[in-house]
Amino acid sequence: MNMYNVAVVGALGAVGREMTSILAERKFPVRTMKLLDIEAYEGQESLFNGTSVRVQTARAGAFTDVDIALFSAGAEASLSLAPIAVKEGAIVIDNSSAWRMDPQIPLVIPEVNPQALKTHKGLIANPNCSTIQMLVALKPIHDRYTIKRIVVSTYQAVSGSGQKAIEELHEQVKKYLDGEKISSRVYPHQIAFNALPHIDVFLENGYTKEEMKMVHETHKMLDPAIKVSATTVRIPVIRSHSEAINIETEKPFEVSEVVELLQQAPGVQVIDDVRSNAYPLALNAAGKDEVFVGRIRRDSSVDNGLNLWVVSDNLRKGAALNAVQIAETLVQQQLVHIPAN
Amino acid sequence: MNMYNVAVVGALGAVGREMTSILAERKFPVRTMKLLDIEAYEGQESLFNGTSVRVQTARAGAFTDVDIALFSAGAEASLSLAPIAVKEGAIVIDNSSAWRMDPQIPLVIPEVNPQALKTHKGLIANPNCSTIQMLVALKPIHDRYTIKRIVVSTYQAVSGSGQKAIEELHEQVKKYLDGEKISSRVYPHQIAFNALPHIDVFLENGYTKEEMKMVHETHKMLDPAIKVSATTVRIPVIRSHSEAINIETEKPFEVSEVVELLQQAPGVQVIDDVRSNAYPLALNAAGKDEVFVGRIRRDSSVDNGLNLWVVSDNLRKGAALNAVQIAETLVQQQLVHIPAN
Repeated sequence: MNMYNVAVVGALGAVGREMTSILAERKFPVRTMKLLDIEAYEGQESLFNGTSVRVQTARAGAFTDVDIALFSAGAEASLSLAPIAVKEGAIVIDNSSAWRMDPQIPLVIPEVNPQALKTHKGLIANPNCSTIQMLVALKPIHDRYTIKRIVVSTYQAVSGSGQKAIEELHEQVKKYLDGEKISSRVYPHQIAFNALPHIDVFLENGYTKEEMKMVHETHKMLDPAIKVSATTVRIPVIRSHSEAINIETEKPFEVSEVVELLQQAPGVQVIDDVRSNAYPLALNAAGKDEVFVGRIRRDSSVDNGLNLWVVSDNLRKGAALNAVQIAETLVQQQLVHIPAN
Repeated sequence: MNMYNVAVVGALGAVGREMTSILAERKFPVRTMKLLDIEAYEGQESLFNGTSVRVQTARAGAFTDVDIALFSAGAEASLSLAPIAVKEGAIVIDNSSAWRMDPQIPLVIPEVNPQALKTHKGLIANPNCSTIQMLVALKPIHDRYTIKRIVVSTYQAVSGSGQKAIEELHEQVKKYLDGEKISSRVYPHQIAFNALPHIDVFLENGYTKEEMKMVHETHKMLDPAIKVSATTVRIPVIRSHSEAINIETEKPFEVSEVVELLQQAPGVQVIDDVRSNAYPLALNAAGKDEVFVGRIRRDSSVDNGLNLWVVSDNLRKGAALNAVQIAETLVQQQLVHIPAN
């Protein structure tokens, strides 16, 4: 088996740490592991597969001996450093939003559109967390019944905003219990005991960038003909996003057929026995790989309507795991080289 | 001005306490105030308008001197006691789900269908919290543009399950911070740092009773022709429900016209300036009377589509305030008597 020199960029962030541990956990064929982060962290130590690794600075020159670099360092760092890493010979799988909508760059969920990897030119984008879990659940339904429209409302965890947001929620909850004044830094409003209909920045059309990511990324990866309307909401959950998804298909279906389809779908686990109060829950999905689907029921308010409740760990399948699965797919498809053109 | 002998049944519950304080706050013409609850609470004292009132047992015989009784004692108590109260001469405004779908019984939101009060026979039902705030926001839009379909996802506060649920959330959050084992009694799963797609019991069709209330109550109060699909979700918020509402209208509209319409609508306050991060928030709505509407934006995934974010205090407009407003409307319309038939 081929072995690879792997780098994780943003290695000390919430997603970077997940990437490192998932690479070990899934026994990715790592020859050498390079942990890269901002200069301030140079010399810190972090673990890979039980071994301490010294963190180095992510900068030009750091990628000459790297085959695959998993980036989770934010859009700005990625815009400047990813092209350099590619030039230095690495394949970059980037978790930021920087390159996702570039028509030259594959945006990939291995369960949804692995074929898009074939034309990669060294840089591959990892989709947004809320889109990944939605499309893993909807892909088999679309293949069989052709989805026409999606209306989705999200219930997103604070870990999607990084370690500082987790700390802010903890701190606010503690101050609430202690009867102290609560302040906010990461979010524009208190997140503890609240629901913020605001993720990422607002755009001209009144939607947030997070909402429009769900529209555009669905078009790029699944089908540009699907109409998508999204409302994305941050709630005081630490890990795992939940989504209430309403769809409308071209072709008629039986709900039991959809359940069977989802039970067989890669990356999906159906939890749907309401008589025993069994449905997907953010708390239970945390630390798991699967996209959990439940509350599967016909929506009779429209022809061929269906409601679903979809939950997945936003740091794993929503970010780090999907990136590692892209790397695995590249290895399987013998695509760990930059095509000549 | 006529003065009325008023009773609050379930006076020591979360909604009962709100009813009592809202009656005082809005200067409802109360001649005498009777606070009724289960026998175990007999003799406890509670405040009305700064005066201590002795709680009596809610039972047959307690309503002979009562003109208007506001019930918030649960469906079971209401089924047995409300007809007795009516026979004893009181007009009952009942906050439980017991009578809502009875075709003989008016189900009323004063801003939506006050005319339904005209035919009351002594018992009037107060709608479900999540339906009230949705319909207050949608009524002016329906009147002008005719709503065809609603897809709604809710973000509901634990106070909707009563005082014990508020205590459960507090306790779970505290145990989480202390690193102690968390248990659940009110909810089937941990509510702290979680999202439960489960409110009220599950029905045969896979929907919860809460979800079907939003369907049936919309049909009864606004228009039976409107198609409704609901997903109702409990989140770790103490007070105020939030709702992501997607609608489709018959007639075309300009978003600016809808905003103007809502700005003039009774009971509605528009908060919608995303450039300054202004949108309705559960925390800010707590203790307020209005239904707050924001994130008003066109949904281009369908003809005449619109998205809204609607937030209101579930204990006030969602329960106690609406019941008091029904009583006020009865007074204004001179309907505080039981029609002869």
